Parts: sequence; structure tokens; C-alpha cells
Amino acid sequence: MEENKQEIIDEKDEAQNEESEQTVVEETDELEQLRQEKEEINNRLLRLQADYDNFRRRTQKEKEADRKYRSQSLVEELIPALDNFERALQVEVDGDAAKNFADGMKMVYDQFKAALEKEGVEEIPAKGEEFDPHMHQAIMQVEDENYESNIVVEELQKGYRLKDRVIRPSMVKVNQ
Amino acid sequence: MEENKQEIIDEKDEAQNEESEQTVVEETDELEQLRQEKEEINNRLLRLQADYDNFRRRTQKEKEADRKYRSQSLVEELIPALDNFERALQVEVDGDAAKNFADGMKMVYDQFKAALEKEGVEEIPAKGEEFDPHMHQAIMQVEDENYESNIVVEELQKGYRLKDRVIRPSMVKVNQ
Repeated sequence: MEENKQEIIDEKDEAQNEESEQTVVEETDELEQLRQEKEEINNRLLRLQADYDNFRRRTQKEKEADRKYRSQSLVEELIPALDNFERALQVEVDGDAAKNFADGMKMVYDQFKAALEKEGVEEIPAKGEEFDPHMHQAIMQVEDENYESNIVVEELQKGYRLKDRVIRPSMVKVNQ
Repeated sequence: MEENKQEIIDEKDEAQNEESEQTVVEETDELEQLRQEKEEINNRLLRLQADYDNFRRRTQKEKEADRKYRSQSLVEELIPALDNFERALQVEVDGDAAKNFADGMKMVYDQFKAALEKEGVEEIPAKGEEFDPHMHQAIMQVEDENYESNIVVEELQKGYRLKDRVIRPSMVKVNQ
């Protein structure tokens, strides 16, 4: 009788265990799936955050560079006019009236130069400087005992830079 | 005997059910928590995505505006020099040499104007135009039968705009 009872209980147990295991296995599967999904979304979140941060940093840098060199295209347009202004001012004039006119024009020229300088435009130093291929374009080589080797002896056309960027290199004669 | 057996089985069942329920409840709690966490991360992901998109759009717009008006600060600096250039050119000169000099300067002036125009700088039309408070600054009011009411009869100082932005309004006399 005891044995019989135990048998019955065992049978019942087995059936119930199976059912219960079934449930637990299903729940565990779902848990596992959810954990994976959560992990995946979390990774996407982290990647997106990193992308966003990079984009912000890059944008900030671009903005600063854009701002720093914002005048470049207008400066490039103005430089040939400035060349002609200088050339025109070199003409000698006679008579008081013409001299006054020329003085007035020299003042206008200075005002233009001052406006450009305020925006960061500078003439590139040339004559007497050591030849620098980043800033000087050598048009001619000469042999001049008065200068040391590799020194700019004459500037043929002014060069300009905008802050640290060369807009137009100086055209120069260099001592061999 | 049958009853007795059933009782024993029921007892055993109850104990087992309790244990099984305990597990299921724990797993369900964890499932629920995971679902909530997943939902939360997902919401953060969506918000971040929306923020990022907004930031990108705003940055793009700012970039376009920066680009459009990039020359503004240099233009503002150059306008007073341009005023003086015009004033200086209005002086009458005598003699061929001085006239040649003045012609050369007029060409330089035209070149400056062309460089500025290429960057989008325009003179604001004034004389004969209807008075527009966005572009014209009325310095004087006059009564002139030759003009209709609210028409600019004289320009006292040129105004300039950079594309659609007024950099300096024209100073004008307006007919009452």
C-alpha cells in the first residue's frame, strides 16, 4: 500500500514537473530574448550618443574655421584691385592740385589696408627674409654678394595671408 | 483507499504548486522589469535621435546663413573707405597727367566695386524710389512739386546691402 501510494505520487509529480518546467523554460526564453533586445538597444543608444558627440565636435571645429577664414573669398577678389591701387599711386604727379589729389588717394588706400588688416589680412614679409616655399614663389634666381644664400633679394609682387593661411604667395627673386 | 490516495496527491500537489508559482512569479517580475527597462532605453534612443536630427538641421541652417553673410564684417569695414574713395574722385583735376592719374583711380574704384558686387554687395537704390524705412533713413523732409509724396528726392549718403541684408541704410531727403 505504501509503495503503491508512492508510485502514484511519483507519477503525478512527473507530470506536474514537466508542465512546470515547460513554463519555466518559456519564461527563461523570453527573459533571454528581452535581455538581448535590451542589450541591443542599449548598444544602439551608446553608438548614437558617440556619433552625436563626434558630430557636435566636428561642427564646432568647422564653424570656427569658417569664421576664421570667412573673409577669404572677398579678400581674394580685392587683392588684384589693391595691386592696381599701389601701381597707380606710384605714378609721379606734378602740381599742387594733383599732389593733393594723390595724397587723398593715398589716404583712401591706407584706409582700405587698415580695413583688411582688421580682418586679419597681412602682407607677407619678403625682401631680406629667408626664402620660404610656403609663402614665397621664386620667379628668378640671382647671384648677389650683398645677400646670403637663400635670401629674398627682391619682391616682384606682394603676397598676402589671411591669419595663418597664405592667400597669395609673394613672387620673389632669390639669392642662390 | 481511493479517497486516501487522492488526499495524499492533493497535498503533494499543493506544495508543488506553491513552489512552481513562486518561480513563475519571480520570473514574471523580472520579465516585467526588463520590459520596462527596454521601453525606457528605447524612449531615450528615440529622444536622442530626434535631438540629433534637430541639431543637424539647425547646424545646416546656421552654416548656410554664416556662408551667405560671411563677408559682412569686412564689408562693414570697407564701406567708409569706399565713401572716401568716391568723395576723392569727385574732385576736379586739371592737366593731362592729373587726368590720367584720376582715370587710373576711377578704374581702381570700379575694380573694388566689382569685387564687392561679386560677393553680393549692392548699392541701395534711393533717388526717385518710394521711401522704405527698412532701407532708407530720412534725414530731411522737403516739399517738392516735381516729386510725388513719400518719394526720395535726394541721396545724402549711399546705402549698401549684402544680399538681402541691409548693411547701412541710405541717408535721404524725402518729399512730404
